[in-house]
Parts: sequence; structure tokens; C-alpha cells
Amino acid sequence: MSKLRFRISISLDGFVAGPSQSVENPLGIGGTRLHEWAFALAVTRAQHGLEGGEVNESTPVVEESLANIGATVMGRNMFGGHPGPWDAKEPWNGWWGVDPPFHHPVFVLTHYAREPLALEGGTTFTFVTDGIEAALEQARRAADGKDVSLAGGARAAQQYLAAGLVDEMEINLVPTLLGSGERLFDGVGDDLHGLDLVRTVAPPNVTHLKFARR
Amino acid sequence: MSKLRFRISISLDGFVAGPSQSVENPLGIGGTRLHEWAFALAVTRAQHGLEGGEVNESTPVVEESLANIGATVMGRNMFGGHPGPWDAKEPWNGWWGVDPPFHHPVFVLTHYAREPLALEGGTTFTFVTDGIEAALEQARRAADGKDVSLAGGARAAQQYLAAGLVDEMEINLVPTLLGSGERLFDGVGDDLHGLDLVRTVAPPNVTHLKFARR
Repeated sequence: MSKLRFRISISLDGFVAGPSQSVENPLGIGGTRLHEWAFALAVTRAQHGLEGGEVNESTPVVEESLANIGATVMGRNMFGGHPGPWDAKEPWNGWWGVDPPFHHPVFVLTHYAREPLALEGGTTFTFVTDGIEAALEQARRAADGKDVSLAGGARAAQQYLAAGLVDEMEINLVPTLLGSGERLFDGVGDDLHGLDLVRTVAPPNVTHLKFARR
Repeated sequence: MSKLRFRISISLDGFVAGPSQSVENPLGIGGTRLHEWAFALAVTRAQHGLEGGEVNESTPVVEESLANIGATVMGRNMFGGHPGPWDAKEPWNGWWGVDPPFHHPVFVLTHYAREPLALEGGTTFTFVTDGIEAALEQARRAADGKDVSLAGGARAAQQYLAAGLVDEMEINLVPTLLGSGERLFDGVGDDLHGLDLVRTVAPPNVTHLKFARR
């Protein structure tokens, strides 16, 4: 069966975004420090249409996390722009420009209905107003046998984790402190729902901890 | 110079003790799960006067953390018993019985003055009422050229970390969630004061992350 796979970068003190997230600063203050390891990699740069970058111990981890993904689910805060109803005249179309790096169907959790948005390169955004299980079901159908990626942000991840719906979780632990911001595990409780640590990869600047059901 | 070295076990969601700490349950609900990896080891059992136990990938990490320690500092909550003034008739003498596993001078941060307490096996507890720097200075003198261990708990560790006084930090990350309790990094801010990740050891049930100044 199609798995729900989640990967995220997190600080040593448990934050996945810094404080004061905004349109200008979507990762919050200091939040980009969580992603420096990834943006140094050729595989990540290529995903965003950029040349250059490194090949190192993290490369196969990122390649694995990108492989066999047929659809994505994400929260409204990750899709971004602003909270509340969509602007009817100039609706927010995501952070990623006309050719987002997904290249497959993306399902956005929101309380506000909206027509689907088709962008270049095969990325379509479908807005789901009836909850995390409905979004996952639609994503699984769209993935057509492949897996579904849970892209975040923190609140969407918390809901899927608390419900025990995540099948694989790749924690990219960055050895830095953010001090405040969005905590990944807030409200998730004390149950990993059978997710065990199954593999650790430890380059100098990030620790990759893979959790899965045995 | 004598270093201040700190090692602690922490859950994936950042807690070093579970909720509802008490005399009966000093690690809080679920807190013992953070220490199962350590108590399976022969080196830890021997430290507590017990036979048996395993030798595995964690053994050299624990041996390193125990080596060359001449004194310990700890917070009042870790010394334990109760908050507030000491009971004049039956003062709390620590969790560890008549022969505590330290075997060297221990300095306890407290707001309540008290005469030193000498127990068996070379462990003496000295109660320090004039703050973390004074306690560290006394511990360094007592350590006589060796290093000082910062034993915890969370609030004592937070003060030393925030002040930039920790020279080495061994984080034993346990792949479990506690959901609530005492967070290690609460109030520490976003500055590790030059502590970089210098070594990772990754057995299946715990991830040892060593931070030090380069």
C-alpha cells in the first residue's frame, strides 16, 4: 500500500521554523539555518532548477526521500501567503512561482474552499476542506501506487503524527538552537504509533534519523 | 583548564524528564524510558554497584563521559526530595543511599544554606547558595586538575548553557516521545556559545551527539 512519508529538518531544541514567520520570512527568524545542509546539495539544487552543489553522505538520504513519491499533502501555513479566506482578486498561489518543485498533485489542507490550481511542470494544488484523512485519501488515489509525501508545516505534521497516519519519518536533526518558533512535536503526545528508529546517517552538519514501522 | 562537561539523555521531543516528578517518581512519568539504554550497559551497572549488563557501541561513549571527572555540580531538583527550606529534623540526603555513585565532591545549587554532607565512598555534597558561577569555581578547585561534570537537572543545565559555561555536551537522543515534562533547552536561547557537533555514535536505540568547542 502507498505509504505516507514525512521528512523534515528540525533544530536540536525541536523547532522546524523560527519565530515571526511571514511572507517575507516564511521559515521564521533563523529558520533558514535548518536547511543549509540541504541547499548545499546538488540533488536539492537540481530539484529547484539550480546547478552546482555538493555530493556527500546526505545525498542518498535526500534521493531516497524524493524517490517513488506520487503526491504531496501539506498544511495551509506551508502553502502560505496569509491566514483566513483566500483573496478573491489576487489569490495566493504558493511560494514556488510558476513551476513549483513538486511536479505531481499536491493537496493543501484548508478551511476555505477554492478551485484547484494547475501550474507548470505537472504541479496541481487541490484544496481540501474536509480534514487530514480526506486529504490523504485523495493524495493516495492521485499517487497511483506511489507513496505520498507529507511536506509540513508543523501543524499539519502534528495532526498526521497524532493520528498515527505517518508510515515513515525522516528527521534531519540540525545541531543548532532556534530558541523559539514552531515545535514539531507539540501536542503529538507520547506515542510514535509503532515508528521505530531504523537507520541513522551522521555527516558532520546534520543527523538523519529514519523512523519506520518494523 | 578544567572543563565543564555535561551529558544528558533526552527524548526526540526534547524532554529530559517526564511530567509529574515526585519523590516516588523522580524522572517523571515515562522518564525511565530515557535511561533504559544506559542501564542495559555493564559500565553503568558497575557504577551503581551492580553486576551484569551489556558491552555495545554505547560503552565507550559512557566510559569517556565518566573518565577524568573530579567533581560534579547539580541543581537542587536533581539532588531532590522537596522544594524550599531543608527539613531540620530529617534533611533529605539525596536519591542515592549511603554510598552514592559519584565518589568525589558534589556541589548542589540551592537557595537554602546547609552544612556539607559527607557520605561513603568519597562522595561529599556541598550546598552552594551564591549561584552557578560560584558553584563551578568551587567544583573546579575541588576537581584538582580534572574536569567537572554537570549532572543536571534541566533548570541547572539551562542556566549553565545560557551562560555559555558548558565546554562539552553529550546529548543521548532517545527515539521516543514523552509528550510533556521538563524540556532541556527551554529558555536557553538560540546560541550554543561555540559548541559544535564533533562526533556522532549511532547504535540502534540511542544517538550520541557530542558537542564541543573546536
